[in-house]
Amino acid sequence: MSKEGKPMSVCLHPLGGGAAAAPERQPVCVFGTGDMGRSLGQRLLQTGHEVVYGSRRPLGCGPLPRGAQVMSYAAASQLASVVFVCVHREHYGFMETLGSQLDGKVLVDVSNNPEKNLYPEANAAYLQSLLPGCHVVKAFNTLSAWSLQNGPSDACRQVYVCGNSTEAKRAVAEVATKMGLAVLDRGSLSAAQELEDFPLQLFPEWRLPLQIAVGLAAFFFFYVVIRDVVYAYAVQGKDISFRIMVSLANKVCPIVSLIMLSLCYLPGIMAAFLQIYRGTKYKRFPDWLDRWMLCRKQLGLLALGFASLHVLYTLIIPIRYYVRFKGWDYVITQVKENQTSKFDTTVAWRSDSYLSVGILGFGLYVLLGITSLPSVSNALSWREFSYVQSKLGYLTLFLCTLHTYLYGWDRFLRPSTYKWYMPPGYVLSLAVPSAVLALKLLLLLPCVDRTVTRIRRGWERTDPEEEKTLLT
Amino acid sequence: MSKEGKPMSVCLHPLGGGAAAAPERQPVCVFGTGDMGRSLGQRLLQTGHEVVYGSRRPLGCGPLPRGAQVMSYAAASQLASVVFVCVHREHYGFMETLGSQLDGKVLVDVSNNPEKNLYPEANAAYLQSLLPGCHVVKAFNTLSAWSLQNGPSDACRQVYVCGNSTEAKRAVAEVATKMGLAVLDRGSLSAAQELEDFPLQLFPEWRLPLQIAVGLAAFFFFYVVIRDVVYAYAVQGKDISFRIMVSLANKVCPIVSLIMLSLCYLPGIMAAFLQIYRGTKYKRFPDWLDRWMLCRKQLGLLALGFASLHVLYTLIIPIRYYVRFKGWDYVITQVKENQTSKFDTTVAWRSDSYLSVGILGFGLYVLLGITSLPSVSNALSWREFSYVQSKLGYLTLFLCTLHTYLYGWDRFLRPSTYKWYMPPGYVLSLAVPSAVLALKLLLLLPCVDRTVTRIRRGWERTDPEEEKTLLT
Amino acid sequence: MSKEGKPMSVCLHPLGGGAAAAPERQPVCVFGTGDMGRSLGQRLLQTGHEVVYGSRRPLGCGPLPRGAQVMSYAAASQLASVVFVCVHREHYGFMETLGSQLDGKVLVDVSNNPEKNLYPEANAAYLQSLLPGCHVVKAFNTLSAWSLQNGPSDACRQVYVCGNSTEAKRAVAEVATKMGLAVLDRGSLSAAQELEDFPLQLFPEWRLPLQIAVGLAAFFFFYVVIRDVVYAYAVQGKDISFRIMVSLANKVCPIVSLIMLSLCYLPGIMAAFLQIYRGTKYKRFPDWLDRWMLCRKQLGLLALGFASLHVLYTLIIPIRYYVRFKGWDYVITQVKENQTSKFDTTVAWRSDSYLSVGILGFGLYVLLGITSLPSVSNALSWREFSYVQSKLGYLTLFLCTLHTYLYGWDRFLRPSTYKWYMPPGYVLSLAVPSAVLALKLLLLLPCVDRTVTRIRRGWERTDPEEEKTLLT
Repeated sequence: MSKEGKPMSVCLHPLGGGAAAAPERQPVCVFGTGDMGRSLGQRLLQTGHEVVYGSRRPLGCGPLPRGAQVMSYAAASQLASVVFVCVHREHYGFMETLGSQLDGKVLVDVSNNPEKNLYPEANAAYLQSLLPGCHVVKAFNTLSAWSLQNGPSDACRQVYVCGNSTEAKRAVAEVATKMGLAVLDRGSLSAAQELEDFPLQLFPEWRLPLQIAVGLAAFFFFYVVIRDVVYAYAVQGKDISFRIMVSLANKVCPIVSLIMLSLCYLPGIMAAFLQIYRGTKYKRFPDWLDRWMLCRKQLGLLALGFASLHVLYTLIIPIRYYVRFKGWDYVITQVKENQTSKFDTTVAWRSDSYLSVGILGFGLYVLLGITSLPSVSNALSWREFSYVQSKLGYLTLFLCTLHTYLYGWDRFLRPSTYKWYMPPGYVLSLAVPSAVLALKLLLLLPCVDRTVTRIRRGWERTDPEEEKTLLT
Repeated sequence: MSKEGKPMSVCLHPLGGGAAAAPERQPVCVFGTGDMGRSLGQRLLQTGHEVVYGSRRPLGCGPLPRGAQVMSYAAASQLASVVFVCVHREHYGFMETLGSQLDGKVLVDVSNNPEKNLYPEANAAYLQSLLPGCHVVKAFNTLSAWSLQNGPSDACRQVYVCGNSTEAKRAVAEVATKMGLAVLDRGSLSAAQELEDFPLQLFPEWRLPLQIAVGLAAFFFFYVVIRDVVYAYAVQGKDISFRIMVSLANKVCPIVSLIMLSLCYLPGIMAAFLQIYRGTKYKRFPDWLDRWMLCRKQLGLLALGFASLHVLYTLIIPIRYYVRFKGWDYVITQVKENQTSKFDTTVAWRSDSYLSVGILGFGLYVLLGITSLPSVSNALSWREFSYVQSKLGYLTLFLCTLHTYLYGWDRFLRPSTYKWYMPPGYVLSLAVPSAVLALKLLLLLPCVDRTVTRIRRGWERTDPEEEKTLLT
Repeated sequence: MSKEGKPMSVCLHPLGGGAAAAPERQPVCVFGTGDMGRSLGQRLLQTGHEVVYGSRRPLGCGPLPRGAQVMSYAAASQLASVVFVCVHREHYGFMETLGSQLDGKVLVDVSNNPEKNLYPEANAAYLQSLLPGCHVVKAFNTLSAWSLQNGPSDACRQVYVCGNSTEAKRAVAEVATKMGLAVLDRGSLSAAQELEDFPLQLFPEWRLPLQIAVGLAAFFFFYVVIRDVVYAYAVQGKDISFRIMVSLANKVCPIVSLIMLSLCYLPGIMAAFLQIYRGTKYKRFPDWLDRWMLCRKQLGLLALGFASLHVLYTLIIPIRYYVRFKGWDYVITQVKENQTSKFDTTVAWRSDSYLSVGILGFGLYVLLGITSLPSVSNALSWREFSYVQSKLGYLTLFLCTLHTYLYGWDRFLRPSTYKWYMPPGYVLSLAVPSAVLALKLLLLLPCVDRTVTRIRRGWERTDPEEEKTLLT
């Protein structure tokens, strides 16, 4: 292969230098021999780089990847133009003494902090202030040592890069690209704080849905405790507190699940009505609606979790001591009092329909959950995804709501169910899903549907008033 | 970094031009500020491009990514050599007036239509016909705005590119590669129609399996309705129609599931016998067999769905009003008539074996389903995947068939089960899986197995007749 | 685009040659028209290469990708500098006769063997020995033909490359990169054996966990068979062997599941105590501990499998003939002997708590399993993953252990449960999880926790004794 034929080699000579004769021969330097340093070095070696480690104790730094050299910080930094700093921030101090060797070189800060807001400025900014002659680039900190060792997979493919020097960022981007990673430039070093906070975040998008779930579950738990246990104790003098563990849990779970499922579909409906009212899709939604729409997936998955618990709690009913006891007691009483009860076909129809609709609803529920898995939703085209999540989603909501109506049947008409004027929990749970389904039906009316579609296409719509304003 | 050291930069100067001094400084132009335009622009900015938006109303086009400029179509198109057209097809007209500015430039058509066959020719072909002086490239239309914003993951990594100019395609491919996407060249612009139909497809590979599933379910539903409900009404005068909701559903689900599971393995066996008969693997299978083999995964997943419903329908049995009533009734009758039934160990063995085998079969069934998830099957080596899908698959089929045989036991011998000469549904369902298992056993015979392996290795086999033909 | 602007083209001219005028015009040669050859050729065509097939029978080699040429081996190899050898090893012989045409070219060996240790040396090494004048590179053998055709996804993105010529490896790497694959250099041709063994491996990381699972399951199965069935037969003369199928299976499953779940967390605790004892994290763990820690995920997933079986076995309890018979029998006896049993609130509390805690534990168990799916764990940041697997993992272990304690309650105090001095199985199963939870509590004590955290940060710790040794 001739010289002109090596265009993909990474040029790692000093930024100001010029010796381009054999650029791929220049090694990459890694400061620090911890987990991150070792994994990074191993990966660099695998992608064809020479690697030189800089270490406090070159002789006692433990096992390093085969093929890498190890020397003192000063010696190592002299050999390379790109230095990966895999050292904890509190040890950055030693680099000040290497000022002359590091001048003009690219320092890649890969550090992370154990928690947020530990230091006033980002680690990378701090490093830049220590070594103003270097080109500090923040990168690779969102990758784990583990994912570097095992080859990057899906989500770990992204390397976020920021820094003040475009040339330095380009050099780092080339190394990353050669390692099979996808580079995203996040701008100047001022973005370093954000990149350093990224690996510390703990399910930020789950926070709101979890709060809603916990809030709803707590409210309905106390509601059914008061309505069932406290009422029985106060009015009938019976202690049925043991029912908390299964019976009441099995009331709270489906109620929360149904409400949260309908909360997934409510914001979409509100957005549609807002767009009809405004006559355009180019105005921003209010912030709360935006945030709500962004956490629909999480709301749905939590709803699925509650639905699954409801299924398990329902299936163990016949194993419960209380249920078995009551069954036997009923039979014994019937025999002793020589009564016979007649088989009621309507009750059989209702009971079986209620169970069957619930099973079908839960089946679709699980299907929705499966298509939410990253690898499954990635394999779907946009149209397929929206078909599943929207069409099948509304069908699921319909079946689950129907399941609840069949469960209730005509019981809500009997005054005895209103203990202390409190309706049963399932009656409360039906309000939101019924409203969502009714509004959705409204949106499916041909005239409304046509308007929404036109607005969503974005181009046909002209607002005479706005036109007037523009003209004047 | 010296000039020779920037070989990975994207050269976006006009195709005929020559000013290669600082090629990465030339911005990319994006026409249209809708969702797609904004997401594309944001991503281009992140990967280091300058972005200039062209807009109808440069002042009133809503929020754009930070760092992008916005100007009139004419002004924007003059600055760049690559123009992304993120505009609906019906608005392409305005570009005709930009003929002189756009001449010789690369126009990337990213448009999609709301449905198939809306227009006689592909959008990209139409654009090319409007602007014969441009190099139209169809690309990026299979990516969603969402996946562009959030970084490409697994399946969204593929960019299909087609166009008549190789140079133009190369320029687009370089932009895409820099964005972390994988480019697949699909040839000339005549492939644009296919690319535009791609995002509109709705589970094409699921269509046949779904039709089979619905067909089987419908047939067996009517079969068991006639055999159970209609028979009971006509012959015994009893109305047991309420059993449709759970009892009959729980007959249809396992039957369809078992048949569809065996249909997953039947084509492989047919292919093997066809290869033995033909003595070569180099002849094409008939089309129907090819199509059948391609939808085995979908057949299996639908079968798993029916099996899951069967499990749920089975587990709720003891909760049903009908079942509880019958249990109580049985006890009350026994007590009143002073009968005692004796515990039958054989029945206990059979009942427990039947349940246990079913549980193990379902467990393996779910395991097969989990290994079908894209991210799991990707993590398996080919040998591991085929081990799971073939060895464990046949074990699953065997267990599920055994489960059905144990369920039936010797009931098929009793004449009373043949109502109106119709055998019970489960007897019908056993035909295909039993045949598949028998044929598989035949293929496992050492002599047959050796022949198939030899043929599949592809090289040892010589057909004396064909050799003769070649020689003469 | 000017000539200088094509830096990403792959230079496929002969290694010693010099004609760099239009390097991308040189085709790539593929020997062999089997599945692998065809898929590779199709993919090469899609990424813009010209492809020439070499075949034994250029006229009768079956369907090839559109756009590819096919000719004799000799003719094809003359046109290209990179030759993909997609031929079984036993047919390598013919290439010896092509010595002069192949001299100095890059031969890419993509072959795999049907099983390990079939030949004394790797296929690639054998090919190199046949053709010493060629540059043999082992690559692409870990990809399946299927994944090449369908576009590379996640795990199939890795191409492992090894060979003695750096230039040849670079040429192959460029082809692979252009195909959207990530290249990993595995060194010289001596690594070829390892690469060829890779696709043949069958769940190597599952072997140890499966052995543990099978060992535990076998031990506890025989334990409960002896304690229940054999004891009943020997001492009471009753044949309850039918209980093996469900009752005993439902004892073995939860026992194995609980022990294996605790075995997931034991090595982490042992590592922490070892680090405290040693006062450093830089000493290697013993090999057995390393291996144990590496298979924690597999241990956990197997434990989840046993837990799922336990759930299914538990849920079908009320359907069992034995259970229904016993229930009816109990009622009939009660009625006949005119006894009445009183409802015991404590038993109801215990029974319901036991079930409820089990359900919650299983729910978390499944959650842990879902986050183990590659696509889900990839989407989590490191902190999120460790939060789920560690915090929620210990909560799961706690709930499952509590479930078992509630199940046992005070039964372990009754002498009658110690048949033949053997405690019930569940008592044995509680040993490991109780120990793990107790040790974990110890590690959570502030003083211990601080020490471990300090050691894991890796930098603060100095060992006075070691320092002394270094100084002397």
